[in-house]
Amino acid sequence: MLSFESDYLTGAHPKILQRLAETNMEQLSGYGADRYCTSAKEKIAQACGCPEAQVEFLVGGTQTNAVIISTMLKGYEGVVAARTGHVNTHEAGAIEYSGSKVLTIPQKDGKMSAEVLKQYITDFYGDGNHEHMVFPGMAYISHPTEYGTLYTKKELEDIAAVCHEFKIPLFIDGARLGYGLMSRTTDVTMEDIARICDVFYIGGTKVGALCGEAVVFTKNNRPAHFVNMVKKRGALLAKGRLLGVQFDTLFTDNLYLNISKHAIDMAEALKKLFKSKNIKFFLESPTNQQFIILENTKAAELAKEVTLNFWEKYDETHTVYRFATCWSTTEADLAALNKIL
Amino acid sequence: MLSFESDYLTGAHPKILQRLAETNMEQLSGYGADRYCTSAKEKIAQACGCPEAQVEFLVGGTQTNAVIISTMLKGYEGVVAARTGHVNTHEAGAIEYSGSKVLTIPQKDGKMSAEVLKQYITDFYGDGNHEHMVFPGMAYISHPTEYGTLYTKKELEDIAAVCHEFKIPLFIDGARLGYGLMSRTTDVTMEDIARICDVFYIGGTKVGALCGEAVVFTKNNRPAHFVNMVKKRGALLAKGRLLGVQFDTLFTDNLYLNISKHAIDMAEALKKLFKSKNIKFFLESPTNQQFIILENTKAAELAKEVTLNFWEKYDETHTVYRFATCWSTTEADLAALNKIL
Amino acid sequence: MLSFESDYLTGAHPKILQRLAETNMEQLSGYGADRYCTSAKEKIAQACGCPEAQVEFLVGGTQTNAVIISTMLKGYEGVVAARTGHVNTHEAGAIEYSGSKVLTIPQKDGKMSAEVLKQYITDFYGDGNHEHMVFPGMAYISHPTEYGTLYTKKELEDIAAVCHEFKIPLFIDGARLGYGLMSRTTDVTMEDIARICDVFYIGGTKVGALCGEAVVFTKNNRPAHFVNMVKKRGALLAKGRLLGVQFDTLFTDNLYLNISKHAIDMAEALKKLFKSKNIKFFLESPTNQQFIILENTKAAELAKEVTLNFWEKYDETHTVYRFATCWSTTEADLAALNKIL
Amino acid sequence: MLSFESDYLTGAHPKILQRLAETNMEQLSGYGADRYCTSAKEKIAQACGCPEAQVEFLVGGTQTNAVIISTMLKGYEGVVAARTGHVNTHEAGAIEYSGSKVLTIPQKDGKMSAEVLKQYITDFYGDGNHEHMVFPGMAYISHPTEYGTLYTKKELEDIAAVCHEFKIPLFIDGARLGYGLMSRTTDVTMEDIARICDVFYIGGTKVGALCGEAVVFTKNNRPAHFVNMVKKRGALLAKGRLLGVQFDTLFTDNLYLNISKHAIDMAEALKKLFKSKNIKFFLESPTNQQFIILENTKAAELAKEVTLNFWEKYDETHTVYRFATCWSTTEADLAALNKIL
Repeated sequence: MLSFESDYLTGAHPKILQRLAETNMEQLSGYGADRYCTSAKEKIAQACGCPEAQVEFLVGGTQTNAVIISTMLKGYEGVVAARTGHVNTHEAGAIEYSGSKVLTIPQKDGKMSAEVLKQYITDFYGDGNHEHMVFPGMAYISHPTEYGTLYTKKELEDIAAVCHEFKIPLFIDGARLGYGLMSRTTDVTMEDIARICDVFYIGGTKVGALCGEAVVFTKNNRPAHFVNMVKKRGALLAKGRLLGVQFDTLFTDNLYLNISKHAIDMAEALKKLFKSKNIKFFLESPTNQQFIILENTKAAELAKEVTLNFWEKYDETHTVYRFATCWSTTEADLAALNKIL
Repeated sequence: MLSFESDYLTGAHPKILQRLAETNMEQLSGYGADRYCTSAKEKIAQACGCPEAQVEFLVGGTQTNAVIISTMLKGYEGVVAARTGHVNTHEAGAIEYSGSKVLTIPQKDGKMSAEVLKQYITDFYGDGNHEHMVFPGMAYISHPTEYGTLYTKKELEDIAAVCHEFKIPLFIDGARLGYGLMSRTTDVTMEDIARICDVFYIGGTKVGALCGEAVVFTKNNRPAHFVNMVKKRGALLAKGRLLGVQFDTLFTDNLYLNISKHAIDMAEALKKLFKSKNIKFFLESPTNQQFIILENTKAAELAKEVTLNFWEKYDETHTVYRFATCWSTTEADLAALNKIL
Repeated sequence: MLSFESDYLTGAHPKILQRLAETNMEQLSGYGADRYCTSAKEKIAQACGCPEAQVEFLVGGTQTNAVIISTMLKGYEGVVAARTGHVNTHEAGAIEYSGSKVLTIPQKDGKMSAEVLKQYITDFYGDGNHEHMVFPGMAYISHPTEYGTLYTKKELEDIAAVCHEFKIPLFIDGARLGYGLMSRTTDVTMEDIARICDVFYIGGTKVGALCGEAVVFTKNNRPAHFVNMVKKRGALLAKGRLLGVQFDTLFTDNLYLNISKHAIDMAEALKKLFKSKNIKFFLESPTNQQFIILENTKAAELAKEVTLNFWEKYDETHTVYRFATCWSTTEADLAALNKIL
Repeated sequence: MLSFESDYLTGAHPKILQRLAETNMEQLSGYGADRYCTSAKEKIAQACGCPEAQVEFLVGGTQTNAVIISTMLKGYEGVVAARTGHVNTHEAGAIEYSGSKVLTIPQKDGKMSAEVLKQYITDFYGDGNHEHMVFPGMAYISHPTEYGTLYTKKELEDIAAVCHEFKIPLFIDGARLGYGLMSRTTDVTMEDIARICDVFYIGGTKVGALCGEAVVFTKNNRPAHFVNMVKKRGALLAKGRLLGVQFDTLFTDNLYLNISKHAIDMAEALKKLFKSKNIKFFLESPTNQQFIILENTKAAELAKEVTLNFWEKYDETHTVYRFATCWSTTEADLAALNKIL
């Protein structure tokens, strides 16, 4: 069965497995205190053009969002996110489990705008009674968003300006960061991300790793005793080498961006294919996730040969499905899809 | 300075103070195990027409919402509320502090509709991926709402029907219940409330008590070891008599409803007064809270003689203010306001 | 039935009820922003000899402990307490509910010693692996303790010295503070308490109020947006006047200390009575709680005429019971007990 | 540098890496819904002699303890553990972070006894005031314990009998279960574990995996919507295959027990070596962790050639160190140590 169901369908990029095997018999201290974690952190700081970056490794995306948000917010604060933000919709309430509220604001194509954010915070402080409300204590955006869309550099800078005006950090969820950076239409680099925001993470799980997300605190702002609070949240990996070796490999010889570029090339070919079949897009996505609208009986037909990932109902007779490419997507996969369509 | 700022501006109804004084020297066990709590519980069960009602006393409204919601939800559930619901807006994140998400749905005049609720839950279960989302585990409505509006009996029954269809409890926040029951336009009685919902509370703080809310579990559904979980949330009052005596008094000789009716009479007179002055209403409220729209310079003028309670911005030149009546509002207050206007 | 079961058996001191009645019709803002709260705060700061004291009112003891501890601890810290400390034993897990661990150390007669505390913290930092452990972030002591015992001024200063050495605050739970200050054997004054510790509270519930505890931050160290975090924990009273008027009364004309002294006088008379009957004490308590050991059949006999408060099993044939005096205990009560014994 | 610092110093058993490589390019659904997870679950159920076993995979030990305890306890309950239990000492307060109290009881050599447990629970229910205390809602033991010691089958059955008497589940932390099962002195099998307790986990991280723990609910008692609550705690791995493939490999051809046996053989040789050098043991451990007492100057000397893992201070001049063996420990390692000693 052909599948473009997600970007975490296959295992890890072969170079990662190879490095895991090569380093397997080395005796290394646990919990991140090994040479591969150290090396990976240095390479990531360099890739960010941010020598003072403080890098920490975690296992998965929801975990990372919960750890960052709950360790950085003050007790009277919540995190502001677009209504469609992953932290608000698909994390089973992980942020609330940590005791913090997700404050939602309207979005467009999965993005928040600096204007809407500013209005929200201004209104908050304008309300005389705001001591009974949750303070906006951080802005959360995902880049690419949950809909595959991207912020421009200007949009990111405008959001950051609002955050700085109100002295709250900007957190960028980069679960699929590589695909954003390699998009053909973006003007945003890794260095821009590091410069503009206060904390972000570089997704590994969805970009060629078995697991792992690299958190980057860019403004010398890592919470004190961070490892302890990671442990407290059940998120500290004993064999930290598993994360260190993977990210060390991904940030050697530009592997992270190269495999992201491959996925983008495949996504562009996929888009072309859909267009050639007159299939309509739910929105214009410049990254590895493509959202198409299928008529329901046609979708049922197609589902016999391709695994379809339901995204949302479009109308009574149509449905939105997501197709994703990744490092392991091949020309042959596209040819097979072409034949089926 | 004249004030209609809220319905908790004055102390307690004099009969409450009198009973507190009369019973003051009695030696009574703590934590609700006293004869006044027992008596009050019986009277409330009777007033609800619900002999099996399990009644518990708590101190304040936000506390009550957090205790009920967090002890009744299962670990994978959140509470569904209108976006304007008190639990979502003005409780400083108390529900999230207990680890639960408030799931918001659109509202009209502060009310949720059965249709919108049903659509929300249906969509939830329609999404294949809902194991990663917070399950709708309870519906929360306030009656009267935060905007003073009321549900009709039919509307409540329809919402309850949706809840029962999906086997989740309906919780009615009755912080101002008395004013709802005594509204001139309502067809809902205390018995209806008890019959229709699974748990509700009868507000004391805003209806003539010094403090206190009476929680009523109507379907033999009080969580096991409820007192322990109340204590765990710091909400157990040592001298439970303070709550018992107050509610015993409020439910003797119909005091609770009588003082609520007085407040409604005053509110109707207030409405008439505003209308006579051609002051516009933000919405039509049949209870003790009235929301009016004032031009900003006029409001500034008025604020010299009447305390104004800012509710929300209406437009660039107008603002919404809330006026509330209560048991202690007098004809003289209204006459004074008339003179000022 | 005669009862010395607890020190919260009766209502409030009559002067409190009188002041509540006198101020009842005044229109006052909610949530502590009223003139009585302001006045009470000033009087308390004065009584503490601490003009910069930041005073806040809460409703009950467990609530106060949970609010103070959870708002003052950092995310990687727990609170150190004697194993018998109220926060560890009789609060239904309220501290843990807020996400913090109670770190217990050995005690003697309900007291921790500076030596044991210092050893505990020193050992903690001596363990190379302490990033995986909960950091000692505050010391909690109760004065009087759960066993009615008292710290000397020297003992308090020594504990504070350890806290300062390790830069953690010292928190004194003064649920029964009045009885400690009025004990005939103490050398500790209210000013000493305020000077030595970083935060403490003056118990109202157990010293003549209907409810209420006055928290005093003595080192200009009240957490930012404290009211918001109190609200978030469901602990903010709408009619804050109820607490303001009570504490304003208690701190007018020395009422708080005067009624505490009365309770101590009654306790000393009670002790004398027990001694005259050759009843053995579980320990030597210089405050209003007395712990006596009764042979079980004798206790059963006695329980027909006096309510006995079980404290703990002493041995197979004996049990420890607590007798408490308070502002409302009378010579007649003691005479009645004498007759029964 | 020679090291016996822990049992997670090297990577994974080579067969695991091999299987990860072999299955790498297969497209598999995420979150545990893949064929390797299914296969591993079946093999584990079989190894437990428990066809109805419900098996779930998590990433690490602290995470597993927190997830199991917080999803199985009721709101008024805490977990009873030996004071030395991992959940009480080395998990940075992860259990408390989930809102639950760890109730500690005395231990001997890291073990709790059925008698002490029974006494604790009996005393709890004997105290009239227990509604204000945390209910004992689960017993937690580790097997092997944190000190490498083991329960006998009889001891486990006795503890389980107490649990059943009070209707609470028995949870066995098997982070190092393989070493317990392969100990030369044990009479406890995997089937015994599954039969006796209500939930346990089979540690992977410390027994040859890169990461991963297999939770086994043995009495058809997996909490409803468990995956959702795992996600809520940030513990759901996207590429569940990483856990499925590893445990499928460990439970193929008896690999899990075989590598555990190797570690035990190495540990016995290590013991013999220490004895031959007249080195004293802190306690008698029949598993892969050995605790020895070294004179401090001698330890400093040794630390130049062997990494020493500080365990605890023994006295002013001696210290306890832990030596651990695992699947990758070799005869050559022991020979090297022999030479150094």
